[in-house]
Amino acid sequence: MQISENERLDDLEIDGLKIIQNKELFCFGIDAVLLSHFIKVGHNEVLADFGTGSGVIPLIVYGIFKPKYIYGIEYQKKSFELAVKNVGLNKLENKISIINADIREMKKLYKDLLFDVISFNPPYMKSGGGIENESDEKKIARHEIIGCLDDYIRVASLMLKNRGRLYLVYRPSRLIELINIMSKYKIEAKRIRFVHPQKGKNANLVLVEGIKNAGAELKIEDPLFVYNNGEYTKELLEIYGKI
Amino acid sequence: MQISENERLDDLEIDGLKIIQNKELFCFGIDAVLLSHFIKVGHNEVLADFGTGSGVIPLIVYGIFKPKYIYGIEYQKKSFELAVKNVGLNKLENKISIINADIREMKKLYKDLLFDVISFNPPYMKSGGGIENESDEKKIARHEIIGCLDDYIRVASLMLKNRGRLYLVYRPSRLIELINIMSKYKIEAKRIRFVHPQKGKNANLVLVEGIKNAGAELKIEDPLFVYNNGEYTKELLEIYGKI
Repeated sequence: MQISENERLDDLEIDGLKIIQNKELFCFGIDAVLLSHFIKVGHNEVLADFGTGSGVIPLIVYGIFKPKYIYGIEYQKKSFELAVKNVGLNKLENKISIINADIREMKKLYKDLLFDVISFNPPYMKSGGGIENESDEKKIARHEIIGCLDDYIRVASLMLKNRGRLYLVYRPSRLIELINIMSKYKIEAKRIRFVHPQKGKNANLVLVEGIKNAGAELKIEDPLFVYNNGEYTKELLEIYGKI
Repeated sequence: MQISENERLDDLEIDGLKIIQNKELFCFGIDAVLLSHFIKVGHNEVLADFGTGSGVIPLIVYGIFKPKYIYGIEYQKKSFELAVKNVGLNKLENKISIINADIREMKKLYKDLLFDVISFNPPYMKSGGGIENESDEKKIARHEIIGCLDDYIRVASLMLKNRGRLYLVYRPSRLIELINIMSKYKIEAKRIRFVHPQKGKNANLVLVEGIKNAGAELKIEDPLFVYNNGEYTKELLEIYGKI
């Protein structure tokens, strides 16, 4: 396996899995890791990860849950190629398939494909904002340039089985919009967990489980704190495989 | 001041305020106290408390904020009379007015009355459920018998000034429904705080601040924990005036 100049190899600290990232592309953060641990997926279930980037969520989810099959969908060519490389690196070609497609076209391209579970770490920002000198690859990963939240959730709802589950990580500041869009496409938020940098601080991430065509009954789980006195909390260390 | 057989007199532990409650009527709980402390109201603002019961929220809010004027709206005759008695007990007749009315009729009855702030501790349960041998007074306070959440929020929106604030305490299980109804009536949830009985437990109450005609930008505040190792937390003791 060739590691090129802008790439680096990291250990995912789970099941011996490794990942190559490219500094010029979008590198995964704590949000993707927390989402992978928030997800629940059974051995007989098929999961699709929308906007999979380098394939980090399929790899971690495979490491934890060993589901029947995982699709990673990635629109950007370079990220797609990196995700394919990462599946090969871990010899998981018979378990994870990476598809190079625009999420908005998925239902047209794969008419009969339905998923038990969809995971999604969407761009948090509307198009227009952001850092000026970002590469296009990073901009597209962070901003709603290729479609908007409404597009993605609409397609997710179309491609989920009845009672299928959607898992998202998002910014609390846009939670109301997210909930309204999920309700519009008949995905009911059932379980929410907020992530706070530390005690006494507002949440900066939110993890959401929605169920297609479910009744209204939401659980707000105990909050997750990332730091305590400047150190990772015990729960965070466990998630990162350091305990 | 006459205290009758089913009544008891409690100290609100703030500003020397006292309250009479009647065991046969709905007695306030921790939710009303937490809501009163979650509210923000200025000295020049007018607040209305929907479904005021014995008047506990107007009394505590007066004790903390000394707003310009407070209306307490109560449909049930006996609770209304008790709230009037409590205002008299604290000699606040020139600061708090209790109105005996159905919330749904308020806009018709008081066409020109607009509030800066509305507080509301609504019934948590849909009509039908509940404890069999409850009195009618308690049933109406706990269940959506006299109107439903949609009715109340609609009237709240009609009676709030532009950019006026709505404060609610509710069950997290029904939060999605609440947010959808608030969005419908152009009240944007801006600040939410979840209340957990203790660390590691799901939230059992949610405090919500909504602003009429505001933009979408939600803050999830640090969670409030009620107990720690079987004792009230420091924050709870402060709220109850015990520190």
